[in-house]
Amino acid sequence: MKDDKYVFGYDFGTQSCRLVAVSIPGGEIAGQAEMEYPSGVISQTLPGTDVKLGDNWYLQDPRDYILALTTLSNDVLNKTKINPEDVLAIGTAFTNCTMMPIDEEGNVLCMSDKYKNNPHSWVKLWKHHGAESYAKEMEGYARANLPRLKYYGNSVSSEWLFPKILQIAREDRELYDAAHTFIEAADWIVYKMCGSLVRNTATLGVNAFYDADEGGYPPKEFFAGIDSAFENVVEEKLKGKIKRVGESAGTLTGEMAGLMGLTPGTIVSVGHGDSEVAACGAGVVTEGSMIIVLGTSTCHQMMYHEKKAFDGVCAIVKDGMVPGLYAYESGQPATGDIFEWYAGNLTPEEYKAEARENGIPLLKLMDQKADRLKAGASGLVALDWFNGNRSILMNYNLKGLIMGLTLKSKPEEIYRALIEATAFGTRVILDSYTANNVEVREVVAAGGLPRKSPFVSQLYADVLGREIRVPLVSNMTALGAAVCASVAAGSKSGGFDSFYEAVQRMVPKKKILYKPNIDNVKVYNRLYNVYKTLHDYLGHTDSSPMRELWNIQQSIK
Amino acid sequence: MKDDKYVFGYDFGTQSCRLVAVSIPGGEIAGQAEMEYPSGVISQTLPGTDVKLGDNWYLQDPRDYILALTTLSNDVLNKTKINPEDVLAIGTAFTNCTMMPIDEEGNVLCMSDKYKNNPHSWVKLWKHHGAESYAKEMEGYARANLPRLKYYGNSVSSEWLFPKILQIAREDRELYDAAHTFIEAADWIVYKMCGSLVRNTATLGVNAFYDADEGGYPPKEFFAGIDSAFENVVEEKLKGKIKRVGESAGTLTGEMAGLMGLTPGTIVSVGHGDSEVAACGAGVVTEGSMIIVLGTSTCHQMMYHEKKAFDGVCAIVKDGMVPGLYAYESGQPATGDIFEWYAGNLTPEEYKAEARENGIPLLKLMDQKADRLKAGASGLVALDWFNGNRSILMNYNLKGLIMGLTLKSKPEEIYRALIEATAFGTRVILDSYTANNVEVREVVAAGGLPRKSPFVSQLYADVLGREIRVPLVSNMTALGAAVCASVAAGSKSGGFDSFYEAVQRMVPKKKILYKPNIDNVKVYNRLYNVYKTLHDYLGHTDSSPMRELWNIQQSIK
Repeated sequence: MKDDKYVFGYDFGTQSCRLVAVSIPGGEIAGQAEMEYPSGVISQTLPGTDVKLGDNWYLQDPRDYILALTTLSNDVLNKTKINPEDVLAIGTAFTNCTMMPIDEEGNVLCMSDKYKNNPHSWVKLWKHHGAESYAKEMEGYARANLPRLKYYGNSVSSEWLFPKILQIAREDRELYDAAHTFIEAADWIVYKMCGSLVRNTATLGVNAFYDADEGGYPPKEFFAGIDSAFENVVEEKLKGKIKRVGESAGTLTGEMAGLMGLTPGTIVSVGHGDSEVAACGAGVVTEGSMIIVLGTSTCHQMMYHEKKAFDGVCAIVKDGMVPGLYAYESGQPATGDIFEWYAGNLTPEEYKAEARENGIPLLKLMDQKADRLKAGASGLVALDWFNGNRSILMNYNLKGLIMGLTLKSKPEEIYRALIEATAFGTRVILDSYTANNVEVREVVAAGGLPRKSPFVSQLYADVLGREIRVPLVSNMTALGAAVCASVAAGSKSGGFDSFYEAVQRMVPKKKILYKPNIDNVKVYNRLYNVYKTLHDYLGHTDSSPMRELWNIQQSIK
Repeated sequence: MKDDKYVFGYDFGTQSCRLVAVSIPGGEIAGQAEMEYPSGVISQTLPGTDVKLGDNWYLQDPRDYILALTTLSNDVLNKTKINPEDVLAIGTAFTNCTMMPIDEEGNVLCMSDKYKNNPHSWVKLWKHHGAESYAKEMEGYARANLPRLKYYGNSVSSEWLFPKILQIAREDRELYDAAHTFIEAADWIVYKMCGSLVRNTATLGVNAFYDADEGGYPPKEFFAGIDSAFENVVEEKLKGKIKRVGESAGTLTGEMAGLMGLTPGTIVSVGHGDSEVAACGAGVVTEGSMIIVLGTSTCHQMMYHEKKAFDGVCAIVKDGMVPGLYAYESGQPATGDIFEWYAGNLTPEEYKAEARENGIPLLKLMDQKADRLKAGASGLVALDWFNGNRSILMNYNLKGLIMGLTLKSKPEEIYRALIEATAFGTRVILDSYTANNVEVREVVAAGGLPRKSPFVSQLYADVLGREIRVPLVSNMTALGAAVCASVAAGSKSGGFDSFYEAVQRMVPKKKILYKPNIDNVKVYNRLYNVYKTLHDYLGHTDSSPMRELWNIQQSIK
């Protein structure tokens, strides 16, 4: 213990921030702490003002990040008695694309009296969807003018960096002009720590079309085509150096070291997105190992040595997870959210009362009831497009469906069908990888759902017809950030030189392995065909009655 | 008042019996009474025994019918002080096909010690579905060997008379042999009153392939083809005279007159099915006027001068409603049942609490919430096949569906989509009548739903794009039975000679007229196309994923 060194890993989530301190080379969790952001997610009015926000606006207060950064560091140091000098490096993971406009000193514009009443001066959280129309516009242009769009599922998300910047440029040109630069929060927190503006290729790759194989950002002509006033957005508004995962961005400034209780010169790794860092925390750092993060939505990530565009992949990023491999990302925009919607809107009173009596969460009770059913016995199948589809159909206007309802259909049968639907959705993605010869060798499930629900994990194993490994790792994302810190430090500073080595030492091996039940696999193979038939019929939007239904809805004022 | 005469109309329902006494020629309701059957619907064990019933068995105790018959008569006489001699005639309506085995004296076999422990000796209620496999078998044979099956939607229901008799013949030959005859409850209650066994062509037409144009029952060869031991079922087990609607079956016996407090010789009309009699009670006795009875399920009935088989009609019966016209019947096997299922299985706690706080039934609250929505705005469409389809698709294995679900879908939106689906189902039927040049001139809505829910009535008007008349008549079926009694009596006994005349005098003209809202009609025309696209795609079972889903379900043990 006395000779141990430590790395810090921060996970800046949507509602709160977590920090873990990990010993190296031992890989023990020495301490951890968590705090909620005082202002949380801002969606109604700007803090301390009467300024109302539009629908789909989600902001944050950057002071919350600094508060979390410093409070948690002091908290962990106090609890563990770690000597600050023994902290080698700091890694961070951030929700993304969460972004903000900053001035020349790196202060977010909302921190000034001049701009604090202007919503555009605040941090736009990843799930801010106010840029929807700008994303659509950009997508339309990019489909014809940005060849690399094929690596992004031919789609532009309103959550990404450029649509969010374009929203500001269009809606408040003065503020756009006033911003020294726009920056992702993942990079801003690093900038604040080490005083130099260094961006990371991984989140830029996912959120800003950054492609190291193609010379970085899209060319000027692309931005000029969208809006002549947007032509120089990269030069003018995306200043700073760019480094890749595994590198250090710099070292802790004296000022920030003081606030954090640490030593100036402590290594700070480049910024990271939370989902790719979670893979490190789960020990997933090799080609062909797919990590599926099942939470409110599902994110599938896998590394592969080649870059191949195909349906079902929504981003392919060079060095996106570990250096030297392409990170493939796929997604299902609603998973746990569907179950929560179900619980909130369709669960009968008696079930809620039963859950209360048993002192368990409602979804736990639903799991128990659904677990007693046999695969296929309810005669139900559902489509999981409750928040659109962003795998092979890539269409946010698609919607959910439940088929096979009878007067005897029970709530737990519908609930189970919804879970099955999300698993079928994952299977469509895996099938697309396989069909394109991008072999998925292993499936690792992480996120809240697999840990909370063995039933869901087993069901996924049965639907996918594959073993599913659920790593028993707490604070996976924060641990992943710590792994990144150890690699940024490198062996000569007491860290590691490769992700593989770091993960071997730092990530616990404990896991649960779910093996597919052969009888269920047979039934699910048949049910999957039913799902796929509906998927193909309703998903092809030109002739689909689902498209017409959407058109009708749009026509209603 | 002093010179007034009266007719009695009984409505033998599933749970209870109602009686109305109506003055003629004045048409005033002089008195009414209702009682529940002491044994109600028997579905678990035979009363007074440990004998357990199978799934889908639904029986009744015939003593309950006699008790209701006599109790209600005395009750109304007592309350109204009507002179028994002024009661001209008695009409009855019965659920159908409710049937039983009787001995030579007309006693149901379950009333004897010898048979009382044998479930087959009891009354099989209309919704007894224990004969499902026999109906399927009969249907298979009839499709090739009974040309008139085309007038029955090419389908045989397990609720009908012959499948129920076949169940007894196959499962308990001894009891089959012991039965002097099998009889519908509609005719049995008449038999008990007037002592002579007279059956009616209308319920036989719906339930027993009786076709006056084709010489009555199907030929011997048909029954022999199903089972050699079934060859003589008509001669041996369906004894008695047959008369048509509007005729009298006989007059009250001394014994029964004593029990009922009436005078021997009182005219007793032939038996009637409840749904055709309800049409009389709603004043629907002319060609082209369609009555839609919206309750747990929906029954559509209309008279027409010709006999034309086409999809969407599940029975065409000569003299089925009033003499001289063909009664067309169509049906949707679940309507209110779907809303009840929804309320029981999918309504959230908060809504139930809100209904309780407001002191209104849950479905009333749901109506209020759904009424505030705009047609088409939810982006949802449903299929109403929660209990199969027996209109143009005629397939009980079809199932319900809800499409267009999102994380923002609200309970009242789903509820409204379910109501719309049942209205679209009705529209499919009406469209089929129109396409086959059987003109629907008017739509009259009756049953529990239109009276309880103006919202549902208006929605139907909007979906059908037609005016809907809801007659404000209480005890419609019992009143219809009274109308039948007055016609059976005829003018020379103080009644009427035609249904038209009787209805003019006896049925109140009060109504609510729902006029279609043009804006909603436009939206529903589009939504109906979406419904119809799904209907056609999923309803054609050979290639339908719904068929495969059903196959999978059947394969699960």
